[in-house]
Amino acid sequence: MTGDIESFRHRHLLGIRQLDARDIVTILDSTDSFAEINERSIKKVPTLRGRTVINLFLENSTRTRTSFEIAGKRMSADTINITGSGSSTSKGESVLDTARNLMAMRPDVIVVRHRAAGVPRLIAEHIDAAVINAGDGTHEHPTQALLDCATIRKHKGDIDGLEVAIVGDIDHSRVARSNILALVKLGARVRLCAPATLIPSGITKLGGQETDDKVSVHHDLPSALNGADVVMMLRIQNERMLGEQCRFANVREYSRYFGLSERTIKFAKKDAIIMHPGPINRGVEMTPEVADGPRSVILHQVNYGVAVRMAVLYLLGSGVGSDGRSQG
Amino acid sequence: MTGDIESFRHRHLLGIRQLDARDIVTILDSTDSFAEINERSIKKVPTLRGRTVINLFLENSTRTRTSFEIAGKRMSADTINITGSGSSTSKGESVLDTARNLMAMRPDVIVVRHRAAGVPRLIAEHIDAAVINAGDGTHEHPTQALLDCATIRKHKGDIDGLEVAIVGDIDHSRVARSNILALVKLGARVRLCAPATLIPSGITKLGGQETDDKVSVHHDLPSALNGADVVMMLRIQNERMLGEQCRFANVREYSRYFGLSERTIKFAKKDAIIMHPGPINRGVEMTPEVADGPRSVILHQVNYGVAVRMAVLYLLGSGVGSDGRSQG
Amino acid sequence: MTGDIESFRHRHLLGIRQLDARDIVTILDSTDSFAEINERSIKKVPTLRGRTVINLFLENSTRTRTSFEIAGKRMSADTINITGSGSSTSKGESVLDTARNLMAMRPDVIVVRHRAAGVPRLIAEHIDAAVINAGDGTHEHPTQALLDCATIRKHKGDIDGLEVAIVGDIDHSRVARSNILALVKLGARVRLCAPATLIPSGITKLGGQETDDKVSVHHDLPSALNGADVVMMLRIQNERMLGEQCRFANVREYSRYFGLSERTIKFAKKDAIIMHPGPINRGVEMTPEVADGPRSVILHQVNYGVAVRMAVLYLLGSGVGSDGRSQG
Repeated sequence: MTGDIESFRHRHLLGIRQLDARDIVTILDSTDSFAEINERSIKKVPTLRGRTVINLFLENSTRTRTSFEIAGKRMSADTINITGSGSSTSKGESVLDTARNLMAMRPDVIVVRHRAAGVPRLIAEHIDAAVINAGDGTHEHPTQALLDCATIRKHKGDIDGLEVAIVGDIDHSRVARSNILALVKLGARVRLCAPATLIPSGITKLGGQETDDKVSVHHDLPSALNGADVVMMLRIQNERMLGEQCRFANVREYSRYFGLSERTIKFAKKDAIIMHPGPINRGVEMTPEVADGPRSVILHQVNYGVAVRMAVLYLLGSGVGSDGRSQG
Repeated sequence: MTGDIESFRHRHLLGIRQLDARDIVTILDSTDSFAEINERSIKKVPTLRGRTVINLFLENSTRTRTSFEIAGKRMSADTINITGSGSSTSKGESVLDTARNLMAMRPDVIVVRHRAAGVPRLIAEHIDAAVINAGDGTHEHPTQALLDCATIRKHKGDIDGLEVAIVGDIDHSRVARSNILALVKLGARVRLCAPATLIPSGITKLGGQETDDKVSVHHDLPSALNGADVVMMLRIQNERMLGEQCRFANVREYSRYFGLSERTIKFAKKDAIIMHPGPINRGVEMTPEVADGPRSVILHQVNYGVAVRMAVLYLLGSGVGSDGRSQG
Repeated sequence: MTGDIESFRHRHLLGIRQLDARDIVTILDSTDSFAEINERSIKKVPTLRGRTVINLFLENSTRTRTSFEIAGKRMSADTINITGSGSSTSKGESVLDTARNLMAMRPDVIVVRHRAAGVPRLIAEHIDAAVINAGDGTHEHPTQALLDCATIRKHKGDIDGLEVAIVGDIDHSRVARSNILALVKLGARVRLCAPATLIPSGITKLGGQETDDKVSVHHDLPSALNGADVVMMLRIQNERMLGEQCRFANVREYSRYFGLSERTIKFAKKDAIIMHPGPINRGVEMTPEVADGPRSVILHQVNYGVAVRMAVLYLLGSGVGSDGRSQG
């Protein structure tokens, strides 16, 4: 499948759910072009000159915020950071009033991270700028899934037909949800692997019949990894994941059954690639040998992080094909 | 009255007090020009290219800081944010040493917000850059009053002869003080409305005989709003305003007597506009119906916020008419 | 001695230790050129256009961070600030993982401040960008020593043969260490002055035989200042310096013996200059009369702060002479 900027009709990027396969491929193709710019010594294009991008990060995230900020600046946008501490929200202003007030400053794009699911959509419904969801609660984190797909495509050529294992705390993971939707739309099969307490019921039906047909649930690593082309490890949120909620008493015990090591990686295909959205808990989700080993593409993910955000900012913020856009 | 950039002779913007009516009109005229730029798709002018603007916000303010930052960037200035947490002030450095040190980095403009009245003036007396007061204690907040005037002028054509009601905690409000001075200079009459405990004695003499003639004090909403062209509601600072200081036991009771609703707004003129410096406590200063209703111009205020700061940065930071300037 | 950009072969600036006298002079000559740009009304050169500079400040520092940020922006670089609070490090990510992840975003320069000695070197050994040490524990703070040398050279013409007194908490001071190395390389003699408990044993051998020959230790101010051309006062860290560690019970008593006043400054040469890395504790390290007096060059230091950082960013970040560089 090839992408087509002319047919990309979205005003916002609220989730992978709103995109079809062609939209995703359009973004990935554009990502590859921008990735090339990032390898130059002069990493600057005038694409968004005179445009204003506000990074509204009401939940902390150095990496994602930095990635969007660099993406905006390399495209010559004016970028403004607003973070949780010190913001009007601490004066009791509702997030919608915050957004309306920001809108009155005439930004072209607002990038939103919030701990509550649905906040980017709420903002998008009430203001006139393009809204990009940079992670909302346990709902979606579309640019993470897009950079993951760009990384997989780079290493595997085509996503269609691949077997992808996603291992870890599926229940609390917006990264997992966005990846399930994106990978299935692009033709992959997805195996989810975790203790039963960390896999929400009905997760395979996340994208309706399409995902129900393509997503399977596993409770042990060997069966999930058997024949996998891609192994995507999720970050463990120590503070909320283990203990009472889970059948494991501590991280070390969890790690023994669900962590990736030189030993357990052998269950996957010989040429399987290893991914992690970061930041890694070394020795928990995977051993340092795996994280830094030849199959790890973790830093390629981060590298695509800037490029995919440049692509999304370009498609939503530069005015390309701005006529006849849907509100999705 | 018309403005005249040639006659604008100020080096700093420390308060409305130092400006005469012509100066204010000059800023408002310039504001209208910049407001037009903010509606373009390419919102960028080279006016302040190579100039350095430091936002020294030693008291938190997302909105005002963002507004100045966007204003600077759209004029191509290099903008630097310094906020209270993490600054040298936490190492015990005096604010004057901080300012002198910043000055040695050769900024062209320093925008200062501080919880203590008089700090911007102190800094202006000791350094060589233009200083803009972005709010100092309960003293002045001149750019807020200027954007309020720009908004009123836009909706009412002329400020001369208007009746403006300012309702709320006058005692703690620098917004009220700057607006009283600005509105009276431009020919309006001002009614202040609050419980007696929240109106400082002698407030009508804030600007000498001129304000004493034009400013009246009211303790009930119907008399303050009767015949008003503009109703400006002030933010309630829950934490310091009510309880012992005030005859109201709680916010709800205060709101019943001094809040704006569909019922109480009827006391004002039919075409009265409703203003608020934000962030709003919905249901306290006004009901959501009023805040989002057809008379509300609150988001126009925010929109003018960027434009008025562009105008002030232009007049003070670009070197226009820099010869023969006074130190006021 | 004259500098020579062609012979400057460093990839990083980790400390003064790695530089020879010619390297230092190259940086100082370049600093003087950039200082001239900072006096223009249009303070902007395109030298680093399209380059990305990340300020990774995991220990607070308004002044140094602001100085690097202004330096980068005046050279048209894209500058990104990452500070300790809110960074991935609070999620338990190791500083090396942080650096690797940043590297995947393709910065050209990473400026690192960290409370632990050796972190900039650790990062430099593992990533591909130029690394500038902006202060690491009690190890080095090379750009501070360079701006101090630029200031001394400006006022004294030549550093060779000068007598420089450094007074205060030598033990905890990276500024002192970097200055000892730089000043001795440039031919000065250095007197260290403090109570015995605040001078680490072996400090004169910091740079081997060369510093052992040129550095002397003094425990009283008159002997240290006798014949000094330059008096460099160090900041007192109240919280860790006095009390049990020191023979003085409090700051006032310390200040009486080691503080600079109109009285004690007379021990130095008549044309001695007074320096301080800031922020000053007025009335402790020196009286306000001395800090603001005619011999004080403290604000010249800050002014050179921006210029020296422009020079270092230029030499390391612009690709000049990038062939055949050493990894030091």
